[in-house]
Amino acid sequence: MNVLFVVCDGMADRPVRELGRRTPLQVAKTPSMDRVAELGITGLVDPVAPGVPPGSDVANMALLGYDPYEHYSGRGAFEALGAGLDLGPGDVAFRCNFATVDKRGVVLDRRAGRISTEHAHVLAEALQEAAEDLGAELGVEVVFVSTVQHRGVLVLRGEGLSRAVSDTDPGEAGRPLRRCEPLDSTPQARRTAELVNAISERFREVLARHPLNARLEVPANAILLRGAGTLPRAKTLKELYGIRGACISAVALIKGVARMAGLELLDVPGATGSYDTDLDAKFSHALRALEGGADLVFLHIKATDIASHDHAVERKVSFIERIDEALGKAMELLDLEDETYLLITADHTTSLRTGKHEGDPVPLALAGPEVRRDWVRAFDEVSCAQGGLCRLRGIDIMPVLMNLLGKMGKLGA
Amino acid sequence: MNVLFVVCDGMADRPVRELGRRTPLQVAKTPSMDRVAELGITGLVDPVAPGVPPGSDVANMALLGYDPYEHYSGRGAFEALGAGLDLGPGDVAFRCNFATVDKRGVVLDRRAGRISTEHAHVLAEALQEAAEDLGAELGVEVVFVSTVQHRGVLVLRGEGLSRAVSDTDPGEAGRPLRRCEPLDSTPQARRTAELVNAISERFREVLARHPLNARLEVPANAILLRGAGTLPRAKTLKELYGIRGACISAVALIKGVARMAGLELLDVPGATGSYDTDLDAKFSHALRALEGGADLVFLHIKATDIASHDHAVERKVSFIERIDEALGKAMELLDLEDETYLLITADHTTSLRTGKHEGDPVPLALAGPEVRRDWVRAFDEVSCAQGGLCRLRGIDIMPVLMNLLGKMGKLGA
Repeated sequence: MNVLFVVCDGMADRPVRELGRRTPLQVAKTPSMDRVAELGITGLVDPVAPGVPPGSDVANMALLGYDPYEHYSGRGAFEALGAGLDLGPGDVAFRCNFATVDKRGVVLDRRAGRISTEHAHVLAEALQEAAEDLGAELGVEVVFVSTVQHRGVLVLRGEGLSRAVSDTDPGEAGRPLRRCEPLDSTPQARRTAELVNAISERFREVLARHPLNARLEVPANAILLRGAGTLPRAKTLKELYGIRGACISAVALIKGVARMAGLELLDVPGATGSYDTDLDAKFSHALRALEGGADLVFLHIKATDIASHDHAVERKVSFIERIDEALGKAMELLDLEDETYLLITADHTTSLRTGKHEGDPVPLALAGPEVRRDWVRAFDEVSCAQGGLCRLRGIDIMPVLMNLLGKMGKLGA
Repeated sequence: MNVLFVVCDGMADRPVRELGRRTPLQVAKTPSMDRVAELGITGLVDPVAPGVPPGSDVANMALLGYDPYEHYSGRGAFEALGAGLDLGPGDVAFRCNFATVDKRGVVLDRRAGRISTEHAHVLAEALQEAAEDLGAELGVEVVFVSTVQHRGVLVLRGEGLSRAVSDTDPGEAGRPLRRCEPLDSTPQARRTAELVNAISERFREVLARHPLNARLEVPANAILLRGAGTLPRAKTLKELYGIRGACISAVALIKGVARMAGLELLDVPGATGSYDTDLDAKFSHALRALEGGADLVFLHIKATDIASHDHAVERKVSFIERIDEALGKAMELLDLEDETYLLITADHTTSLRTGKHEGDPVPLALAGPEVRRDWVRAFDEVSCAQGGLCRLRGIDIMPVLMNLLGKMGKLGA
């Protein structure tokens, strides 16, 4: 037996005025998701706890069974893992953005006009060269890589570092670049902040004189850093439950969480992490992994969240319907009677109105061989509240699944 | 006001193929349990936590309000208490089986052909004598008693002992007896393991030359030990809530848990812990105890669990129906309007398919003077998920009951 665990990023929502005060899931035509609800057991899930809005890293950690209050040690680590870097126990990693700043250091564009991946790679090469020189001066190994578009990762490797330092990213355009400050009084935090400031300055110098920037309409002349993180100390799902798991996601942050959990990252051509992603390809790769012997495939779909961040009501509804269509085709190939548990949920609520992650619970439906089928027949935030799972927390989901697979150890005699 | 707390061991189940993918509780005709649901409030209970399969000791501890993560200190202690032995703070107790091994020490039968209680007592006397001699040599007091059939208890009393030692019981036939090993690096654990190995060897010598064994078709020529445990440090229910409680169970392990909680053990003739138990006698003794002033009677019924362990589908259904009948007769004598709270639940799910304890939640129904009656009218794993109690954890039950009895202290002003 195995599990296909489908997570649609930020799919859950609040009632939306433009939808007659219904949620996108209530409005969208989702016969396949409804079929999962009808065949299975449903419920509500608080990714972390009632009312607590989770970041994507925290939410997906929790869905994979890791208590964020115990294991979360900063976004940067997941970004680095997701970018394919390895982290040692003392390394500190940051999520980076190529950005555009004016002469006084005020941020004009936090994404440098959404610089192309190719251009970013060219600039990143120059930055990495400078980072190596600077690192040699400062007695620390510095690694900078760019990933997709404006996104990148900075890793400091060495002794005596700390993740207790502030972001240089001011969080919105129109504000000045921030100095990195230590967040506690340890010498490690002070040193790390000094290193970050020195590196940021050197990066601005390198970018200012880079010939590519002279040709770009929106120059990428600064690097914003945020989310200092260290490698979480956590056992993999294999160590915890003896299972072989895989993850399909186009988002580095989610890939990083999956790597922490020891999931194999499956590369799916056409998976973009945006509206244009190839959903059929993602599902067919997931099914192939299950056929190949994976016990669990974690399939993450991003663009529902993007639609909410963009306040794009109709786009969210229609993308949900596209997911439903792809899910339906996959369901025709799954044996939910004897072989596979199919779970569909969201990692958190993202509000179309506020454009932000919110702390409302998410609906969950789980069909498969031995679930206690309830009477719920629709997959949405309200219907699933009537379900047989009642209301669980994110970290409960993995034990519930592993229990069905017979992978949970007994407590007591 | 008082409480009759009925726990049917392993009664909850998953949907069963032979029952048209329904659970035994969904299929069995249970007008009395359904009546408790109809008159009362219902819900789901995770004995420990969602997805976590509990042992019987852990599950019943939790139902009596003791957090197993805080209080559980090994099965052996409960077996010893349940066998009527007392334990001091440093004593280490083991659950024992009379078993049959071949010359190389491979276990042929973990229950020595389910040796009769009488024969086991005869052998136990010889073992106790040897244990006393050996204890004097080794500087520790050794107590061995046999209880029912192949079951027994070994207690080591003295200073410098530890429960951090492994089982000698290999867990299934066809495997060799195991040496007892220390599970941590303390001298106490090393010494305890050495004692256990010396005692096990001496026991084999005594059993090998015992004249009774020459006459037995399946000789009981070894003792398997498992579940090293020490006395849990816990307040009794009387200390916690000022109540007088009693327990009716034919199972030593459950009796031990009840003794930890300070419940009086009521002896019921005809209560066997198996299919042939006298259910009417158990209920009538429970009612008599309530009439006699007990605030709470914990009534435990075993054979539902046995049926699942034996994969006996029809037997589980029919035994549930027998429980229901006995419950119905008792209900005629209970005043659920003004006097008694009647609670029925299971201690855990035991799957007819796997034959094992599983981590799925159990249904619970509670009728009585001041419960908030909900709309659920059937007692089963799916119906009760719609109930007014929603989904609780095992350790929540006792405060819920004590609150109704007016026995809970207020937190704050």
